[in-house]
Amino acid sequence: MARIRNPERAARNRHTSLERGMSGAASIALPEPFQLYRGGSLKGAQIAYESWGRLSPARDNAILLFTGLSPSAHAAATEQDPSPGWWQRMIGPNLALDTSRYFVICANSLGSCFGSTGPASIDPATGRRYAVEFPELAVEDIASSAYAAVRALGIEQLAAVVGASLGGMSVVAFASQFPQGARRLITISGSPAASPFAIALRSVQREAILRDPDWQGGHYTPEHPPRSGMRLARKLGTITYRSAAELSQRFGREPLGGNARPLSQFAPRFAIEGYLETQAERFVRIFDPNCYLYLSSAMDRFDLAEHGGSFSAALQAVQSESVLVLGVESDMLFPINEQAAIAEAFEQNGLPTRFVRLPSLEGHDAFLVDFARFGSELRRFLD
Amino acid sequence: MARIRNPERAARNRHTSLERGMSGAASIALPEPFQLYRGGSLKGAQIAYESWGRLSPARDNAILLFTGLSPSAHAAATEQDPSPGWWQRMIGPNLALDTSRYFVICANSLGSCFGSTGPASIDPATGRRYAVEFPELAVEDIASSAYAAVRALGIEQLAAVVGASLGGMSVVAFASQFPQGARRLITISGSPAASPFAIALRSVQREAILRDPDWQGGHYTPEHPPRSGMRLARKLGTITYRSAAELSQRFGREPLGGNARPLSQFAPRFAIEGYLETQAERFVRIFDPNCYLYLSSAMDRFDLAEHGGSFSAALQAVQSESVLVLGVESDMLFPINEQAAIAEAFEQNGLPTRFVRLPSLEGHDAFLVDFARFGSELRRFLD
Repeated sequence: MARIRNPERAARNRHTSLERGMSGAASIALPEPFQLYRGGSLKGAQIAYESWGRLSPARDNAILLFTGLSPSAHAAATEQDPSPGWWQRMIGPNLALDTSRYFVICANSLGSCFGSTGPASIDPATGRRYAVEFPELAVEDIASSAYAAVRALGIEQLAAVVGASLGGMSVVAFASQFPQGARRLITISGSPAASPFAIALRSVQREAILRDPDWQGGHYTPEHPPRSGMRLARKLGTITYRSAAELSQRFGREPLGGNARPLSQFAPRFAIEGYLETQAERFVRIFDPNCYLYLSSAMDRFDLAEHGGSFSAALQAVQSESVLVLGVESDMLFPINEQAAIAEAFEQNGLPTRFVRLPSLEGHDAFLVDFARFGSELRRFLD
Repeated sequence: MARIRNPERAARNRHTSLERGMSGAASIALPEPFQLYRGGSLKGAQIAYESWGRLSPARDNAILLFTGLSPSAHAAATEQDPSPGWWQRMIGPNLALDTSRYFVICANSLGSCFGSTGPASIDPATGRRYAVEFPELAVEDIASSAYAAVRALGIEQLAAVVGASLGGMSVVAFASQFPQGARRLITISGSPAASPFAIALRSVQREAILRDPDWQGGHYTPEHPPRSGMRLARKLGTITYRSAAELSQRFGREPLGGNARPLSQFAPRFAIEGYLETQAERFVRIFDPNCYLYLSSAMDRFDLAEHGGSFSAALQAVQSESVLVLGVESDMLFPINEQAAIAEAFEQNGLPTRFVRLPSLEGHDAFLVDFARFGSELRRFLD
């Protein structure tokens, strides 16, 4: 994605096109130096985003969508890229995020590798990839960089901020830092601070990458990434993104299709192992290992209580009109009690808060699958 | 442990010493060739065991104890090895396995590395370690080899067969193969066939070892094992052996003790990560990677329904007087519905079956921790 040479002129042009109502992908330069939450800063950084719908002349109908750890900003098809996005069934005319009313912007997270600046980007100071020299990244930075991008589009206050998983964390990080930044907040399968179970799993995922000899202290080449470590990390993630009950229902003890006899005694034998294999191979092709390490660490370290001493104190200045907190009872990675804690913190500040425990079977990933339940909750809340 | 040169004389001497009531460790030669469930066979194989209490003159008071994946036969202190065993608080005079009444034998599983024959043993045919040339191993073989060892001690029918985790699988594998082999059966946190969730986790654990370059196709030297893979496998195991709730209670988000600042940005930061580290380092020192791969695969492949077409059919010939099935509600690896399925299969055959859902917080590991609940259930059942 080309760097923007004249941010102000680019922004003016962009405002006009946004009001014309084009869906598309673009990137926006962050103010520089861009200060990070844990003390570092970035120069020449940018946020990639995609958008759908038409920005109102008052610029008051924008919804900012944060993503989970691994998706790009391609949440739905655009004119440039008609391939389905990761929330295709949620974004569009008369869908949950209704593009006939709202201007929807999805930002690729700072630290990720799909157009936004991250460890895989070139450091303008050295001409080389940042790799492990990228500054410490926090969930707060994902929120503040996306908001800076939105403001560069001329939008001061969002109609709503929405996110699931890491995106759900990003929504509360947004609210604590920009208490007047959004009229509505929707946090889905998020957490105010990860549990030791989730930390332990992510720690093992990171160690799989860090101990892969191909990681090379972070200085692998793009052609030769730490594949084994990434495969293991993604397989473990895949296991925990669903629920044991859903895996039982979907795979049972079905043998792996194809050749009847496995090639070796330790080769995959069961259909569930084939599923992990598919997910891992797809991920290794698209995701940068250092970006993964940074985003994963940021999730472990996020603690909403850092903003004032408690979850509730962190949200005491929030001016939003209403809050929707969704969680899934079968989620093992971001368990429902963490969404309950988010809802409680908003309620303690007197904010009108709707907390819904969804009975979906799909665990943490339910927001990517159970569109019926999630869609109707979002639609009801936004209407 | 020395190989036994004259099994028959050794067995006679042993019978006498068992009736004298010594606790101790020994090994016993398996009949040869020892036929394995999936078609292979072993020559010169042995089972290591430890025992406590006194064998009655009628040889009718023996309890056979199967272990989980990783423990040795050292379930309690013996005269030779006074260090505490892994079920120290369950085995002894007036304890759950009451050595004032019962003669308790714990067998190291076939395929393991604590004295019983397994992939780390020397193949007498080649003079080299079996490594990946060890024949395919099944849970059925763990049961049949331990029973062969018990019969070599002159014991035809056991007063009880007990086991937890893989040991709980071994108990049902025992029952289906030797329906008259035990008057009582106690299966704890076991499974009649692993779930896809458990298979997926073990598949990732094995892949961590298989992809460690130090595994070398199974031909590592004992001095240079695939440490990284074994560390990852054990860390992942450790996470799933407890419940998320227990980890939250025990560790919360406490920082790692010791030096205030982690050495690198990806180094462990939280106490939970230090716990994983301790468990992993301990395991790498004591357990053989190929043995781990074989035992782990055997657990995935075990399916009680192979014996007759259904769980119930597999147990239809069982002659035991009574059955105790224990499970833990917080167990994610061997979930309570699997113990319910075991209990149901016994009940369908008209066997007096007591099924208890224990509310322990410690998940799959509860049998190693919650001695109050487990001890009282075992004592009540055996009295």
